[in-house]
Amino acid sequence: MNEQKIDPRPSTLDNDRILRAARGEATDQTPVWMMRQAGRYLPEYQAVRAEHSFFEVVGTPELAAEVTLQPVERFPVDAAIIFSDILVIPQALGLEVQMVSGKGPHFPAPLTEPEELSRLASDPDLDAELGHVYEALALTRRRLEGRVPLIGFAGAPWTLMAYMVEGGGSKSFRQARRWLWAHPEDAHALLGTLTDLIAAYLVRQAGAGAQLVQVFDSHAGLLGEETFEHFALPYLARIAERFKAAHPDVPAIVFAKGAPYALDALAATDYDAISLDWTMDPRAARDTVGDRAALQGNLDPCALYAAPGEIRRQVDAMLERFGPHAHVANLGHGMLPDHDPAHAAAFVDAVHELSGRW
Amino acid sequence: MNEQKIDPRPSTLDNDRILRAARGEATDQTPVWMMRQAGRYLPEYQAVRAEHSFFEVVGTPELAAEVTLQPVERFPVDAAIIFSDILVIPQALGLEVQMVSGKGPHFPAPLTEPEELSRLASDPDLDAELGHVYEALALTRRRLEGRVPLIGFAGAPWTLMAYMVEGGGSKSFRQARRWLWAHPEDAHALLGTLTDLIAAYLVRQAGAGAQLVQVFDSHAGLLGEETFEHFALPYLARIAERFKAAHPDVPAIVFAKGAPYALDALAATDYDAISLDWTMDPRAARDTVGDRAALQGNLDPCALYAAPGEIRRQVDAMLERFGPHAHVANLGHGMLPDHDPAHAAAFVDAVHELSGRW
Repeated sequence: MNEQKIDPRPSTLDNDRILRAARGEATDQTPVWMMRQAGRYLPEYQAVRAEHSFFEVVGTPELAAEVTLQPVERFPVDAAIIFSDILVIPQALGLEVQMVSGKGPHFPAPLTEPEELSRLASDPDLDAELGHVYEALALTRRRLEGRVPLIGFAGAPWTLMAYMVEGGGSKSFRQARRWLWAHPEDAHALLGTLTDLIAAYLVRQAGAGAQLVQVFDSHAGLLGEETFEHFALPYLARIAERFKAAHPDVPAIVFAKGAPYALDALAATDYDAISLDWTMDPRAARDTVGDRAALQGNLDPCALYAAPGEIRRQVDAMLERFGPHAHVANLGHGMLPDHDPAHAAAFVDAVHELSGRW
Repeated sequence: MNEQKIDPRPSTLDNDRILRAARGEATDQTPVWMMRQAGRYLPEYQAVRAEHSFFEVVGTPELAAEVTLQPVERFPVDAAIIFSDILVIPQALGLEVQMVSGKGPHFPAPLTEPEELSRLASDPDLDAELGHVYEALALTRRRLEGRVPLIGFAGAPWTLMAYMVEGGGSKSFRQARRWLWAHPEDAHALLGTLTDLIAAYLVRQAGAGAQLVQVFDSHAGLLGEETFEHFALPYLARIAERFKAAHPDVPAIVFAKGAPYALDALAATDYDAISLDWTMDPRAARDTVGDRAALQGNLDPCALYAAPGEIRRQVDAMLERFGPHAHVANLGHGMLPDHDPAHAAAFVDAVHELSGRW
């Protein structure tokens, strides 16, 4: 890892395993990365954050590129993921978002009632509002020098709506869920607005250098099957359709956390791969999805609290359940702030070593 | 409802629908109750809480009986559930629990590391510590005068451990999940201790007047299938085994929220009924469970934010999915503080009216 050679053609890749696996093609080893692989568990990230706020890092291409590359320098991961936040879209719509240390995002003025939809910017200029993300992608892509692909991402419409209405993290997101039942038409209007922006944002990310994109529907699990089919699925499908129309060769992954009932419907959309959380059984998912999509996941992030030998055993069992192909190894959710980087290394190494046996 | 006649034999029941449905027997109408049916959405409950703290109400049999009866006086529900809290067991083990307004339970000194297990009372006297619950059950049972059965309950071992280690509510409960991976033997020791207490507590509740019991594994959904099989299932099974050995005729319900993967294994235990959350499909659950257990649930609590006509349509669809028998209608989780009591009435009435068609 940490190769120093300069690749004069940044569009060629030394390692394209993740792109091939996401398309369902065979690979010599199972590719692996970790959600939130750039983050608080890394001392080098903490060093940057000691000088800059979270949204300063997100908003400054030089800093975003620096922290994006940190896990690539440290671990032999098969991808980088741009350091950013799903809440840049609500910000572009004019909502203020603060990152409160130890508590997560906070909206000082959430959308408490549908009348407040009028507070949103009606046609935000994404290039002006989110140019810093595109610059960060371009800069990171150059600095990667073709070592591994660069992943772009966005939050899904329902997940963003949940934050925008609730005003921050929540166990139940009941204010947002209340909208779906009490104000379904306003909810659809908001979800439609978000869908247009997210699709355009992802298209631009790929134009700026993202070689794979992931859509995070982190709050899908709060919906039941029928509610998901009404308020999440059509918007997720539309995003994939528009993205793939613009960038047919860039793989797109969807992650509907907590929604095992959604797998069959998601497999019928244009996403190339579906990410599983750690509560989903990869064998059952493969039965449901068939060869309609590759799968990503899904070690319990808390398994990284175990000793490295146990992590290796868990990775072995996980690889067995997914099988050798069309699998992008990952955690079932993000890295946690008190994870030990050495345990992340054990995870990455185990995936490569144990999948190489096939 | 609100019948005033005095039944001299409080053990006979005017309405035993819920007991019959929980045992899989046919009923004229589908029985219905609501988790947290006694609670903040009721103005008469708020009036009591204006004078008394949450744990004062729990700890004072007269007050606990009063609020337990409030929803029975107001709605034609088919059961009362004793007003108490799952955290009385950690309290009996010597841990302080505060109820923080708007935030939920808070442990000022949680079990941050396994060494702290020594802080727990080694053999707590449940009659001394929890006699108030048994008294509240006996008093409520007398006041019910046989109108409907009285439900007792307890938290499941993993769910209580999650609170005891985490120190309060949490989206991820990662400190508690860390224990499962980093300290599995200590986790098993704690879960075993909790299991012994919970089983004894439920046996005593039935002795004091509970005619049905429910075990709440509210945090089951944080575990994957394999972790559930190691750290939740055996303890849940042991509780049912001991309870049914002592009270073979008292139905027991288990609610493993968020764990659809657990249904098959739970159906093989001694629980009479399995409660579904709103994200689970009743038809799929019935396919999995067969006639091994009755089912309970599962309207999305947020559906009560919809207009009464829409609630009625949702109830109709729910009843269709469960079918006419071996079903206890309920929400998929608890009532919420800003629910409208009139909408709860619409839910209860719709269950009775629409199930009577069969």
